[in-house]
Amino acid sequence: MPAEATGSPANGERAGAARLPVAIVGASGYTGAELVRLVVGHPRLELVAVCADRSAGSRIEHVFPHLAGRVSMELEPFDAERVARRAEVVLCALPHGQSARVAGELVERGRLVVDLSADFRLRDPAVHAEWYGEHPRPDLLAGAVYGLPELHRAELRGARLIAGPGCYPTAALLAAAPLLRRGLVAARSLIVDAKSGVSGAGRAPAQPTHFPEVGEGVRAYKVAGAHRHAAEMEQEMSAAAGVEVRVCFTPQLVPMSRGILACVYAEPVDGVRGDELVDAMRDFYRDEPFVTVVEGGLPDTSHVRGTNRAHVAVHVDRRTGRVLALAAIDNLGKGAAGQAIQCLNLAAGFDETEGLLGVAAFP
Amino acid sequence: MPAEATGSPANGERAGAARLPVAIVGASGYTGAELVRLVVGHPRLELVAVCADRSAGSRIEHVFPHLAGRVSMELEPFDAERVARRAEVVLCALPHGQSARVAGELVERGRLVVDLSADFRLRDPAVHAEWYGEHPRPDLLAGAVYGLPELHRAELRGARLIAGPGCYPTAALLAAAPLLRRGLVAARSLIVDAKSGVSGAGRAPAQPTHFPEVGEGVRAYKVAGAHRHAAEMEQEMSAAAGVEVRVCFTPQLVPMSRGILACVYAEPVDGVRGDELVDAMRDFYRDEPFVTVVEGGLPDTSHVRGTNRAHVAVHVDRRTGRVLALAAIDNLGKGAAGQAIQCLNLAAGFDETEGLLGVAAFP
Amino acid sequence: MPAEATGSPANGERAGAARLPVAIVGASGYTGAELVRLVVGHPRLELVAVCADRSAGSRIEHVFPHLAGRVSMELEPFDAERVARRAEVVLCALPHGQSARVAGELVERGRLVVDLSADFRLRDPAVHAEWYGEHPRPDLLAGAVYGLPELHRAELRGARLIAGPGCYPTAALLAAAPLLRRGLVAARSLIVDAKSGVSGAGRAPAQPTHFPEVGEGVRAYKVAGAHRHAAEMEQEMSAAAGVEVRVCFTPQLVPMSRGILACVYAEPVDGVRGDELVDAMRDFYRDEPFVTVVEGGLPDTSHVRGTNRAHVAVHVDRRTGRVLALAAIDNLGKGAAGQAIQCLNLAAGFDETEGLLGVAAFP
Amino acid sequence: MPAEATGSPANGERAGAARLPVAIVGASGYTGAELVRLVVGHPRLELVAVCADRSAGSRIEHVFPHLAGRVSMELEPFDAERVARRAEVVLCALPHGQSARVAGELVERGRLVVDLSADFRLRDPAVHAEWYGEHPRPDLLAGAVYGLPELHRAELRGARLIAGPGCYPTAALLAAAPLLRRGLVAARSLIVDAKSGVSGAGRAPAQPTHFPEVGEGVRAYKVAGAHRHAAEMEQEMSAAAGVEVRVCFTPQLVPMSRGILACVYAEPVDGVRGDELVDAMRDFYRDEPFVTVVEGGLPDTSHVRGTNRAHVAVHVDRRTGRVLALAAIDNLGKGAAGQAIQCLNLAAGFDETEGLLGVAAFP
Repeated sequence: MPAEATGSPANGERAGAARLPVAIVGASGYTGAELVRLVVGHPRLELVAVCADRSAGSRIEHVFPHLAGRVSMELEPFDAERVARRAEVVLCALPHGQSARVAGELVERGRLVVDLSADFRLRDPAVHAEWYGEHPRPDLLAGAVYGLPELHRAELRGARLIAGPGCYPTAALLAAAPLLRRGLVAARSLIVDAKSGVSGAGRAPAQPTHFPEVGEGVRAYKVAGAHRHAAEMEQEMSAAAGVEVRVCFTPQLVPMSRGILACVYAEPVDGVRGDELVDAMRDFYRDEPFVTVVEGGLPDTSHVRGTNRAHVAVHVDRRTGRVLALAAIDNLGKGAAGQAIQCLNLAAGFDETEGLLGVAAFP
Repeated sequence: MPAEATGSPANGERAGAARLPVAIVGASGYTGAELVRLVVGHPRLELVAVCADRSAGSRIEHVFPHLAGRVSMELEPFDAERVARRAEVVLCALPHGQSARVAGELVERGRLVVDLSADFRLRDPAVHAEWYGEHPRPDLLAGAVYGLPELHRAELRGARLIAGPGCYPTAALLAAAPLLRRGLVAARSLIVDAKSGVSGAGRAPAQPTHFPEVGEGVRAYKVAGAHRHAAEMEQEMSAAAGVEVRVCFTPQLVPMSRGILACVYAEPVDGVRGDELVDAMRDFYRDEPFVTVVEGGLPDTSHVRGTNRAHVAVHVDRRTGRVLALAAIDNLGKGAAGQAIQCLNLAAGFDETEGLLGVAAFP
Repeated sequence: MPAEATGSPANGERAGAARLPVAIVGASGYTGAELVRLVVGHPRLELVAVCADRSAGSRIEHVFPHLAGRVSMELEPFDAERVARRAEVVLCALPHGQSARVAGELVERGRLVVDLSADFRLRDPAVHAEWYGEHPRPDLLAGAVYGLPELHRAELRGARLIAGPGCYPTAALLAAAPLLRRGLVAARSLIVDAKSGVSGAGRAPAQPTHFPEVGEGVRAYKVAGAHRHAAEMEQEMSAAAGVEVRVCFTPQLVPMSRGILACVYAEPVDGVRGDELVDAMRDFYRDEPFVTVVEGGLPDTSHVRGTNRAHVAVHVDRRTGRVLALAAIDNLGKGAAGQAIQCLNLAAGFDETEGLLGVAAFP
Repeated sequence: MPAEATGSPANGERAGAARLPVAIVGASGYTGAELVRLVVGHPRLELVAVCADRSAGSRIEHVFPHLAGRVSMELEPFDAERVARRAEVVLCALPHGQSARVAGELVERGRLVVDLSADFRLRDPAVHAEWYGEHPRPDLLAGAVYGLPELHRAELRGARLIAGPGCYPTAALLAAAPLLRRGLVAARSLIVDAKSGVSGAGRAPAQPTHFPEVGEGVRAYKVAGAHRHAAEMEQEMSAAAGVEVRVCFTPQLVPMSRGILACVYAEPVDGVRGDELVDAMRDFYRDEPFVTVVEGGLPDTSHVRGTNRAHVAVHVDRRTGRVLALAAIDNLGKGAAGQAIQCLNLAAGFDETEGLLGVAAFP
């Protein structure tokens, strides 16, 4: 059932401008809902299908009442043929494992796929297997592009299968990559201490994310190498550094819905001064439309909430000389759906910022 | 200093479409920031000045870091002549008292003014004086239009001075007006029990809004007729009912940044049935672009956060026959800045929904 | 397995003072945990057994890590014979239906039972059946005492089966009963608009209490007569008023773990003045150890968090003459576990405040 | 004005047991209120005076309504002579600088002083001067004992001037000291990434702790060596390690009222294995009444809220071999008032756990 336009036309609709038809698979989760929000607000996209096997038959505006009045569509079971017939682009927000199969069927039908699961993030099938089990479609790995535009913009232009990065890796990489690229910090010294909002755990209720358990306290989880995102950080940090990087990663859950603050600690390479680090950060992000190097302040997740933006900063500890690089993002924005749209814009040849210039609704 | 475009052009910029130049006075508060956010995302508006006497000389993106990367302007002291020279429309988010003077100077210079203070809300100068002291510009009261489009759309088209409604009255009126208009509930029986997020108290720190005082509990304040918004509700409810309405209003502060949930209780007029109430609600909002009558659910402030939308519902208590009408809005959205833009759209002859179709970033 | 004393002796342990052995059945929920906390801190009680069928075999300090270092016991499956052999008093925090059976088996074995479920709250089996289904042990209803000491203190002394009140009814009754007792407000006019913390929903995860759904917004639920606590309020309010009372009850969920704020609206009886209402409140609570009539302020759930205290107030709306009575409690304290211990103290002949004088850990 | 006993006697009051008279100076802040709470619940202490210059003349139960019904005293201006006449022990919760003078006057009058400011924490006057300015009473520094019982228990017995540790140092030291004492981690490698609830900033309202600014996001502040607590950590860690330790400390503010979670990162000394680290932690805390080594889980501030307890854990990162030690405390409990009472118990010769065995009111 096609999208039924409700209310008035989307912001910035242009008479005559053809919109690219988009389907969202896995639309009943938080990332799915955020994708819906971004696609319906995007002047070059048209939402033509929302799929979710378990909620199939329900209307998406009932599953997500915040969409009511703006989107009115029926969720449908995924069928590659039906989806491929209607959509040129498919945004896939399924659990890992499922996603690879779905993405494979769509890529084979010539569709542009941005996959937000972990399925195409790790380039080495052996590493993937270690963390997620045997890859269902290892044949596709080589063709997938890691969808962090600040590191892979050139490859993303024209890409046909894009792996949307994890939320923690996005934050950690935005903080660390400029320093690693220039070789300013020691590759073996990285620690990522990251604090996430609870929406990162998805929409399925569970005890650790039940309000009273999590609502007025802070705790770490999956520490000491147990969280899968460590592998993803290492892959991309190693690529940025040109040498193998290993990270000590500590994810933490804080009582807020959205946001990640990553504190990345590293040893500076001998002789590196603070201003060189700040310069590296500034230079790296000079032309980036979504990254602000915060000077005279510190990143705050409230300032990027609901957006595709990142706020980053770098400091040198005056007592120990250690480097502290910070990044704040919205885990569902730059950490998931926003970045997926940014990648889609690049792959489709649109202006990279189309549909993504919304400002955070602070406070 | 004119707005310096940063990043890429705003969503939906149209080649050739002239944008209406807008100034925001009182830009250093939360409502001011929300106005900035909406104006820079609006395809028919151009932000040309942001004024804030105390922060004059600072850059707005430093006062509000969430604007960084998207807006870069210097805050300037208010000067009617300078502002009127550059802006066709002025959005005024000053404290009451100050606002009337500023608005007066701008209206006299032929500018369209949407005033978000209480200064032009109460039509009767005596009532205004009782709550806010002597009115500084009583001459302007008669020409001001109360900016709730669902009640005053016709007058808003072409209006030159618009009084943006209070946040609590907006929620209470959206819940009650359809029933009062049809005479389905007794005018003397209204109770408004409303719960607000803390941003409604403004950006100036104070003990009652200090995080530890307010962060993990609920409390009422200014109960029993002490809150100024009661007068505003009564004026508009009386107009809707055609008879004098008095309300018992209980504002409450809950630990969230944004949102108002109003529960309005009323006695049904003899013989009125539940389905008539629901029909009244549905009919009233049938063509409204921003109001959703929630059926099979209940309004939730999370579902309208960051938007100009309202979710409303009506129920009849099966034990007492009493009517419960509910409305959820964002106090800074439909309760302030969003509604001001909706009014501006009407006054300027734009599509009423221009720049306001953003979906809530749920969760 | 008996309680293993850990750390040092409890506050106020008295050499020689015999402690009453207590078992808690349903110890794996939030109310169960709060009972454990109160019993281990009570100078006249000794915790001898904690039962929870599904968690049987686990240690309670693993199920509830906040107990670690203070309590170390194994959860056991409930067996009436085994429990009755060890405990003189049983605190029962099971779901309704289950509770009646367990309580019955223990009362028959001569044990003092404080039941925190709904099973013995409604005196009329027909009313019980309407809301909860057929009562499993209607024979016990007549002997049960409704455990709100402020209304039933005399009957509680020496009682053998006590029905711990619901959390919402406790708050509503503490606000309204003094006025109803004196006949100051019209019995048919009552509205209870109540806001609860999320722990009231229990420990089992579910979508409506998943952090991101509930964490930064407010919403009503089970409105218009659908919530079971309405019947309980009506029973006790009717008894206090001496005439039949019906209430319009609106429960709401706010983003905090603990606390209920009840706003009770009523029409004053003709000629009643505001000072009479305040006097009624003050007189009623003059000697109550746990209720404070807040004057020159308003009740705030933060001020009673973690305690058995209630803060109440009454105001007359100066615009409509309507009465607003407010009460703030902790739903797990005065609204559940605290009140159960208060009842136990009365039934066992202890000082009513034993083990309950802890002050709120504000903020 | 002496404390007026309200309600019933405190838990555990013993006929005949003399209580030690206590005064609290600086009683109008959060730490002051927490001290009041603990003193009135302590079976061996009697609160005889509460001082607060600016609120002098107000009743403490009006300044802190959560004390109403339990404490009723007038706040008085501080006068050393008057206080010393009535109190044997003085708990001093003044801002640094003021505290030293007050403590000096009381020590000179033979009173036992537990000072919760920073004034007596740093043993080296030069280091003190660097962070806090010239010390007003350097003569007293040598006699002050750093009040972390887990590190300085022997010296605390019989001490007359105790420096209550900072909240962040308490958490960091509880995590790191066992490892440093045994020389298991490299002294130069320490990073303390700590997340605090907002009550740590005190009761005075300010923009960074205004609810809407801080309520639904996370941010770092005073990073890179700018926070004063770094010096305190270094002093005590150096003492524990026997060599000079320098720490890189990153304080962060999370949206909750109470709690600190410290993640301490360190390099293991060559050849050290994970089980040695866990053993060191277990051995160190084996007989500690307030510290739990969490095994098979991770520390969570919710589990120690409102208490003097600490939950600690240690892990070795399997990817990098780096050590992660964690500690969760309540910044106002073990991080301030609770620890002060623990020290007082030791200094006065009471059982160390008197008045401190309350369990967290979870959730």
